[in-house]
This record gives sequence, structure tokens and C-alpha cells, in this order.
Amino acid sequence: MSPVVVAADFGGTNLRAAIVDEAGQILARRVDPTPQGAAPDVILAEIGRLLHVTTDASPERPAGLCLAVAGLIDADAGTVILAPNIPGFRNLDLTAPVGQALGIPTFIENDASAAALGEHRFGAGRGTRHLLHATLGTGIGGGIVIDGKLYRGAKGLAGEIGHVVLDPAGPRCNCGSRGCLEALVSGVAFAERARRLLAAGASPVLQELVGYREPTATDLQRAAEAGDRKCEAEIRNGGHLLGLALGGLINVLNPEAVTLSGGLLGMGETLLGPMREAMYSIAYGPSSGTIVRLSELGDDAGLLGAAAVAFERLRG
Amino acid sequence: MSPVVVAADFGGTNLRAAIVDEAGQILARRVDPTPQGAAPDVILAEIGRLLHVTTDASPERPAGLCLAVAGLIDADAGTVILAPNIPGFRNLDLTAPVGQALGIPTFIENDASAAALGEHRFGAGRGTRHLLHATLGTGIGGGIVIDGKLYRGAKGLAGEIGHVVLDPAGPRCNCGSRGCLEALVSGVAFAERARRLLAAGASPVLQELVGYREPTATDLQRAAEAGDRKCEAEIRNGGHLLGLALGGLINVLNPEAVTLSGGLLGMGETLLGPMREAMYSIAYGPSSGTIVRLSELGDDAGLLGAAAVAFERLRG
Repeated sequence: MSPVVVAADFGGTNLRAAIVDEAGQILARRVDPTPQGAAPDVILAEIGRLLHVTTDASPERPAGLCLAVAGLIDADAGTVILAPNIPGFRNLDLTAPVGQALGIPTFIENDASAAALGEHRFGAGRGTRHLLHATLGTGIGGGIVIDGKLYRGAKGLAGEIGHVVLDPAGPRCNCGSRGCLEALVSGVAFAERARRLLAAGASPVLQELVGYREPTATDLQRAAEAGDRKCEAEIRNGGHLLGLALGGLINVLNPEAVTLSGGLLGMGETLLGPMREAMYSIAYGPSSGTIVRLSELGDDAGLLGAAAVAFERLRG
Repeated sequence: MSPVVVAADFGGTNLRAAIVDEAGQILARRVDPTPQGAAPDVILAEIGRLLHVTTDASPERPAGLCLAVAGLIDADAGTVILAPNIPGFRNLDLTAPVGQALGIPTFIENDASAAALGEHRFGAGRGTRHLLHATLGTGIGGGIVIDGKLYRGAKGLAGEIGHVVLDPAGPRCNCGSRGCLEALVSGVAFAERARRLLAAGASPVLQELVGYREPTATDLQRAAEAGDRKCEAEIRNGGHLLGLALGGLINVLNPEAVTLSGGLLGMGETLLGPMREAMYSIAYGPSSGTIVRLSELGDDAGLLGAAAVAFERLRG
């Protein structure tokens, strides 16, 4: 039998764990809701329980385990520096208690970096040597694979493409700067664009969809699909800016492929058409040979990414 | 004796060649003016002659040779795709004729990429593992060292940091896009800023310096040094924008160090102060651990970069 690993993906909503083999097949999986409003040690206990249950379901003893976490990770030290979606997860050693309890080598990785390696090994990035992966969701994340290996940078922060500045006079970003990619094009940024359209009374279609609640990026998408030109223009503008940012990164990294995942892909060609056009319009775009591919891993991207990291770390 | 290589650096003004040992010592050097208005085969013949003369001055037989060229390079194929500063250098196989004539392994590299490896091996980047080098001159170039090795990307274009977009509504760039770093902060961009100040009659100090000729970035710098606040503000604004661009790249690459070279460094702290402030203001700047160092190689950066590439390629 081929070796298997335990892969885990921790978000603010769900804790997921799975047994994955070297071909990227998920042999068993478990999902628990993330305990809401609980102290870190309660969440840690729940994580431990979930990993035990998952490991018990494995056809053989797993060779190792990797936890993918949204946040700042020190992969070498095995600690979470800061996980904004999980209250209390700050300067927390996660691998030592988990590894001791299960008795197998345990690793931790930023979820977007793990997703990049997952795409490279099991998904849309198969067969490439250098890969840039972008996660287009509530926020914007990314990961870089160089020479077939996950590139972490000096302190494990590499791949944070949401915070390249695209407009120094643009809207304020969560990070404190102005006009970061994430402040212009992300689930949060598109919700803000929808809010501005509503405040200006510019979109009756959007207003009818949203009523009195807060608008979301999905509302903007649905209004555009229903034929609202103002909403469509916001998505197209977002795609254009995303393309400029990715085009700049192609000039810096010259990867063989850029792979994309995340909820914003639901906006389809309204987002992706202007994105491709802008991406190839700048500088060395046409000479770069860089192709764009959409993720093939769907909802399992986090788990398969964690599995890919576990296999890579076990190989050393 | 330690092995030596031939290093060559070809620009629009001068052809330089040197014998360099593994410690980065230049044991002999020759400089010829680039033949102006000459056909590519005349320039090639002059390059061949210069390299022969330089090789004859070597205390021992060089183990290899590397040519650093400003332009698009296919390092694997050994060809110049396009060298804007040397007329006729387009889709030109440079390594085969030179290598055959001298009978030693011959390599070619983009000059900014070579400079990055030169800083890593012999200069301000010594002791780092991951390095981003930026060349701040007439244009903006760059090179990336990852895991102690030059990173070229899929097609050898990696490191072209002059074409990250910093302001989609900004001035038109040579590359056809708008608001690239190079269109906002470079020798050319600062000359354009000086031109605008003159056209607006905003700087008598600059006007007196320049008279009726075209202004340069150096004029802007001298006027600022002479106390002109408008000129100083242009340089400080350029430094701010440069810092935002480099800060974004730190978030993407998380290098241990950013090294800087090029003529714009003559602007000193007027440029570098706002640059550092902006660089560390965004996102993960303070957590990145990335430090900034100025080049230690001076005018020999091109030659020492070429030598570093030759030694790396010879090691395989």
C-alpha cells in the first residue's frame, strides 16, 4: 500500500481532517464545526479529538500530519503567530501537543501556501516547475512553488500577494496601507463596492436583492448576472485591477503557470476576461509563457494542500 | 591558485571585460567603447577581440566566461532576445561564437540578474539565503536569489520589478502599460518630473541649472540639494512610491535582504528615507525581517555579477 498522511484544514467555520494517499485520493474524512466563542484550549481539545477519530479511520498508520491554518505561520517552529479567524490563536505552539498525542511527525503551514503546493502536486499546477497560486476569496492570499518545492521566504511569509500596492491613493486596507490588491479586489472589497452603489442609489436590481441587510460580493455577482450594468462594471474593473497585479507578479516571478482558486471565481468571465486582458497587456506578459489555470481541487484544496506539504516535509 | 573566470559587461556606452577569481578579486580588466552605429557583426568582432585580449592577460587559463547584457536573455539557449541599448542585438546567438573562439564554457545572463548574484556572492547580500536586488538607474531592473542560487523563472524573465503596476491611472510606461514602477520612479521618470516642474515654471533653481537643455534626474537632485523644496518633494514622493513597490514585493518574496544599486542612490536619504518608511508601513513589513542594504560593488557590479554567474554555472 502507498503511504498515507493526515491532512487538516482549520477555518473559522469548520475543522476538516482527512486521510490522503500519495496520489491525492481522500480515503477518509471528518468535519466538525469550529467551536464558536471557545477558549483556545477548548478548540485545541476539539482539534485533537477530530484528528484521533480521523486517524482511527485510516486503513494504515499515517506517516505524518500537516495542519493548514489561515494566518501567519512559523513553519519551522511549528507555531501559529496569528490566525485572525480563530480567536485566541496567537503565538500558539500547535504541532508539539498534536504531534505528541498522535505520535507521528506533525507540521503546520499557511493555508494559501499549502494550496499552492496542493495545486502543484494534485491539481491545476501539475507538471509545472515554477507556480504562483492565488486564492481569491474574502481576502486575497497566495503561495509560490519554485523548482517544484514550496517557497516560504525568510520568515515563512512569502506569497502574501494580497498586499501588493496597486493604487497608493486607493481605499484603506486592513493592513493599514492604502490601495492594496485586497482592498480593491476581494470578497470584502466587492461588498464595499456594492455598498457604495447602494448608497448612491445607483442599482435598483442590487437594492431589490439586498433589501435592508448588508450587501455581499455574491449580491454584486447576482445583480450583474441579472443584467445590471453598474454591478457588471464593478466586477470588470476588479478583474482589470487583478490582472494588473498578477501581470506585475508575472514580471517578477515569471512562473510557468498562475493557478486561481476561491469564491470570486464564481464571477466567471466577467471577472476573468478583463483579468486576462490586463495581465498580458503589461511588459513581458506575452513573452513570459505564463498560462492561467483554474483550480481543479474545489473544496478539498485545503486538505490536499496540507497533504502535499506533509509528503514534502516527510521527504525532507 | 584558485580558479578564475572571464567576466564581461556590455552596455550601450562601454564593453568591459575582466579576469575574476573566486574571492571576487579583479586580476585584470579591459574597457573599450561600444562601436557606435556599427552593425552587429562589427560589434561581435570587437567583443571577440576584447575577450581575447582580456584572456591573454589572465595569470592562468580561465575556467569559463559569462557575458552580462542589459536586455531580454534566454540563458539556457545562450541568446540575446532583445538588447534595447545595443542596436541589432535581437535574437542573436552570442555564446556559441564566443565560446568556440575562446574554447571555454560560455554563458550569458541579464545584467540585473547577474548583479543580484554578484551582490549575494561578493557584495551587500553576503550571508543571505533569499535576496531581492533592485537596480535603480535610467530604468528599474532587478534580480532574485533563492536558496543561494539565481532564480530565472520559466523563461529567464524573473526579476523585472520595474514593471509592477503601482498606479493604474499613472503615466504611460515604455512597456505600454500605465503607472509601472519604472514610469514613476527611475532616471527617466525623474527627468520627466523635472520637465513638468520647468513647464509649470515651478522651480527657478532647476531652471537656472538646466538652461535650455533637457533636464535629467541629476538636475532634479542638484536642485533639491541646493534647497529647492519642489524638487525635493518630487524625490521624496518617488522614494515613497519605490518603498510601496518594494514593500509589496517583500510581502510576496519575503527575502532576508533587499539590496539596492544604481545612479538614483546618489539622491541619498531624500529618496531612501521615505522609501524605508513606506516599505515597512505595509502589511507584513515589520514581521518580514527583511533588511535593506546598499550595494558594495560600485562600478564593478556588472563584472562581478557576470563572474558570480560563471562560477555558479560551472558548478552546475
